[in-house]
Amino acid sequence: MTSVSIREVAPRDGLQNEEPVPTDAKVALIDALSGTGVRRIEAVSFVHPKAIPQMADADEVWARVDRRPGIRYSALIPNTRGAQRALAVGFREIEVVVSASDTHNRRNLNRSTEESLDDIASLTPLIHEAGATVEVIVATSFGCPFEGDIDPDRVAGIVARVRADGADRIAFGDTTGMATPRRVRDLLSAVRPDLLHFHNTRGTGLANILTALDLGVTEFDASVGGIGGCPYAPGASGNVATEEVVHMLHDMGIDTGIDLDRLISVAETAEKMLGRTLPSGVLRAGPRTRLV
Amino acid sequence: MTSVSIREVAPRDGLQNEEPVPTDAKVALIDALSGTGVRRIEAVSFVHPKAIPQMADADEVWARVDRRPGIRYSALIPNTRGAQRALAVGFREIEVVVSASDTHNRRNLNRSTEESLDDIASLTPLIHEAGATVEVIVATSFGCPFEGDIDPDRVAGIVARVRADGADRIAFGDTTGMATPRRVRDLLSAVRPDLLHFHNTRGTGLANILTALDLGVTEFDASVGGIGGCPYAPGASGNVATEEVVHMLHDMGIDTGIDLDRLISVAETAEKMLGRTLPSGVLRAGPRTRLV
Repeated sequence: MTSVSIREVAPRDGLQNEEPVPTDAKVALIDALSGTGVRRIEAVSFVHPKAIPQMADADEVWARVDRRPGIRYSALIPNTRGAQRALAVGFREIEVVVSASDTHNRRNLNRSTEESLDDIASLTPLIHEAGATVEVIVATSFGCPFEGDIDPDRVAGIVARVRADGADRIAFGDTTGMATPRRVRDLLSAVRPDLLHFHNTRGTGLANILTALDLGVTEFDASVGGIGGCPYAPGASGNVATEEVVHMLHDMGIDTGIDLDRLISVAETAEKMLGRTLPSGVLRAGPRTRLV
Repeated sequence: MTSVSIREVAPRDGLQNEEPVPTDAKVALIDALSGTGVRRIEAVSFVHPKAIPQMADADEVWARVDRRPGIRYSALIPNTRGAQRALAVGFREIEVVVSASDTHNRRNLNRSTEESLDDIASLTPLIHEAGATVEVIVATSFGCPFEGDIDPDRVAGIVARVRADGADRIAFGDTTGMATPRRVRDLLSAVRPDLLHFHNTRGTGLANILTALDLGVTEFDASVGGIGGCPYAPGASGNVATEEVVHMLHDMGIDTGIDLDRLISVAETAEKMLGRTLPSGVLRAGPRTRLV
């Protein structure tokens, strides 16, 4: 393996799980990330402002972002209204979520997994007609904080269903950090995603990515500084920090297109913006090549 | 691989790099660890109290510890005086340190690597005559914060030298968290240790252990709660947290003999004792099997 594609999710997944920040700061974060060499950014979600006040200004953020050629920007949407908003302002990569755990899906989306799959089936043609692609993120793929282990066959069934319904891409979400190297192997031996989204809740973030690389996965979500978590999942902590992922990959000789020093500068700025210590070792200590 | 041997280093390596705690608390920590099922504990170091005030009460700590049958307790010593003290009070597993980096060795021990190797050569017979074993810990094996990368051949040369001089066991120390999966493969393809000691400075702690497991290593240091760091190395943060290591290993079906719930309880107590938030995800979030 010579290259890996990182999708930077701090502007959406990260900020959605932090105290709200001003619109200016969101735009600045996205534009700063665009300058690091990262090729994919999850920019915003189009959700009801009462449900997710952190994303209430999604339209304004997106209108003000300096959209760079060669960068793929994506938006998360929960329903038809969200899809219409995202498509109207030009997004061509749309993400939707369904949870492999029925309990988690009900707590997160107030409906069963099956009902969410029906929703996705009806949304998909709408998105395709606008010339956009649909990525289905299967949350709690590696375990649910309410139900425990999730049978890989259940995840495989969901993947088969959404692929049959027209999904272009599949991501597996480690929503509350229950993924481990063993669970990554177990699930990926049953069904393969296009992209993996890990948290570092129990210290296994990079070990999980290492395992997935070994199994041939080349696309990962990561969040600069490790910003974000999951508000619906007690005990969940942040996403894997992009600079920790990039640091390990570059050391392995795997290209990401990202300038690590610039990325660390963005993490430093993000830390000041959020006013809390972010959970990133590479942000604290610098890369291993930074000598005294 | 069906089992891994963990050496718990919080009482020595951990506490040596924290604000001093009372003797009672040190004894209580060791005895609590003895109740977790861990089979090896690095208990104290016999160093000059002016150099390491945290270990000034090593004799008293050791005199008061409830020594359990079946647990191997070890002590770190810097010189002949330290060796005599450790042997006099009954230690039969003695650790000595030399740094692969000459610069780091001079800063840490005020002499060259070569001079330290000579010291170890003269200490080894003394320790053997008392019926004890010598473990040589090769610090900065995966990189030095002053010199940068360390050639695996240099580490291999040090290992050959100390083995020729009678060392019973070899450990590689990732003193400032510069180890990565790639560096673990590089070094271990040149020379094999008995035991590995990783820090989690840059998030790679468990990824490194996973890599070493894949290469057949079965002995690891870890520190409950992730207590400790390295005072001589700027930017260094704590050891890998024992509960994070055990959590990953048990999930893989690898036995450690350790009761994870008891271990987490010890981490909780240690956190109160130290009065600071310890860097352990499994301490914060609990194991993945702990449901809501």
